[in-house]
Amino acid sequence: MHYALYYWSGIQGRGEFVRLALEDAGADYTDVAREQGDDAIMPFLRGDHAGALPFAPPFLKAGTLLIAQTANILQYLGPQLGLVPDSGSRRVYAHQLQLTIADLVAEVHDSHHPIAGSLYYEDQKDEARRRAANLRETRLPKFLGYFERVLERGGGYHALRTHSHVDLSLFQMMAGLEYAFPRAMHRLQGGLPHLHALCIRVAARPNIAAYLASPRRCPFSENGIFRHYDELDDPA
Amino acid sequence: MHYALYYWSGIQGRGEFVRLALEDAGADYTDVAREQGDDAIMPFLRGDHAGALPFAPPFLKAGTLLIAQTANILQYLGPQLGLVPDSGSRRVYAHQLQLTIADLVAEVHDSHHPIAGSLYYEDQKDEARRRAANLRETRLPKFLGYFERVLERGGGYHALRTHSHVDLSLFQMMAGLEYAFPRAMHRLQGGLPHLHALCIRVAARPNIAAYLASPRRCPFSENGIFRHYDELDDPA
Repeated sequence: MHYALYYWSGIQGRGEFVRLALEDAGADYTDVAREQGDDAIMPFLRGDHAGALPFAPPFLKAGTLLIAQTANILQYLGPQLGLVPDSGSRRVYAHQLQLTIADLVAEVHDSHHPIAGSLYYEDQKDEARRRAANLRETRLPKFLGYFERVLERGGGYHALRTHSHVDLSLFQMMAGLEYAFPRAMHRLQGGLPHLHALCIRVAARPNIAAYLASPRRCPFSENGIFRHYDELDDPA
Repeated sequence: MHYALYYWSGIQGRGEFVRLALEDAGADYTDVAREQGDDAIMPFLRGDHAGALPFAPPFLKAGTLLIAQTANILQYLGPQLGLVPDSGSRRVYAHQLQLTIADLVAEVHDSHHPIAGSLYYEDQKDEARRRAANLRETRLPKFLGYFERVLERGGGYHALRTHSHVDLSLFQMMAGLEYAFPRAMHRLQGGLPHLHALCIRVAARPNIAAYLASPRRCPFSENGIFRHYDELDDPA
């Protein structure tokens, strides 16, 4: 199966969670907007096609199927790419965890855009300082502590006792948070041994290591979801 | 199958999307915290059980399975309650739409709590005014316009050419928005004929009509997700 991924070029964004799954599995895929430009996304948002209407990228074309929403795409790809357990109940859990990662990602976005995604950061800096402080002091410990417990319950190594798209997404979440909030993540590090072991393991997977070293991996930047603004991190 | 729903008593919240599906299908279920108190939720959040660890309510127990995340619960219940189409591709679309409803619900929550869910509304009123204005003027037209187009593409009546949990959730989303932002929703009404027709149809389904008239339906309130603060609606 050939997959066509549609996501804004130039940033990792939510598309990166899908890319990591495709790359890890060595899947045959095209990153359409990187090849053809972002304009290639627009006809689908306008609905100039039959079938499912996406609200926003990322979306994936697989044969005649068009699938939007990051976690939904990963749920679809999981069995095809060998990135979910076989058991039905574990697949339900995999998706639950993926949705909880999505919730945290949305909160991270809003830490620099607490008022509106359509306004510049500079137009909501004061609000961002308040929200980011709450994220660092309350939400990150809660979410990351949760995922740490999930790993412990899974045997300490995988979220689901086997490698899965959840592990890949936890890696991306941690990488993004360490980029955006290095001091806060350093403060929290001691309590997250399983998450850190997972990140080391995922980064060492041959296809992931090759991807991270390739030009296909965009750097983190202040255009993406995980942004580093020094004033939003723990005080130095 | 008997289902046990765990969600905070006293509010509709995210649990209401699950309740509407269970009620519409006439399912055999217990609303545990309403019978036993909110303390019944805590052992599961602490992880005093085998299996999947929920991050937050709502979660559902069905036999030995524990399932969290609203959209994940509805995806699980859909086939069992006859609330999804038979086709695999339409089920993928159903879930995509459910996740997009979840995204809007999160934005509605943040319109009155843009800084922190753990702070009082009164401690973030100024920020809420800014964020709610953006929600009313930018995000609601975008999301609701999207769902209106989804209904048009589905034949104008159902999101998926057949009754589904998505229709029930669109009803709940609209009911909540009309409670929270009556003036803004009145302003937008003319452009949303399919969504309004859907709401009338869903409210007239016998099991839904009976539920809405029963004491099991909590009223909307300023403790839930959809809150009416007059200063956050369109100017009078």
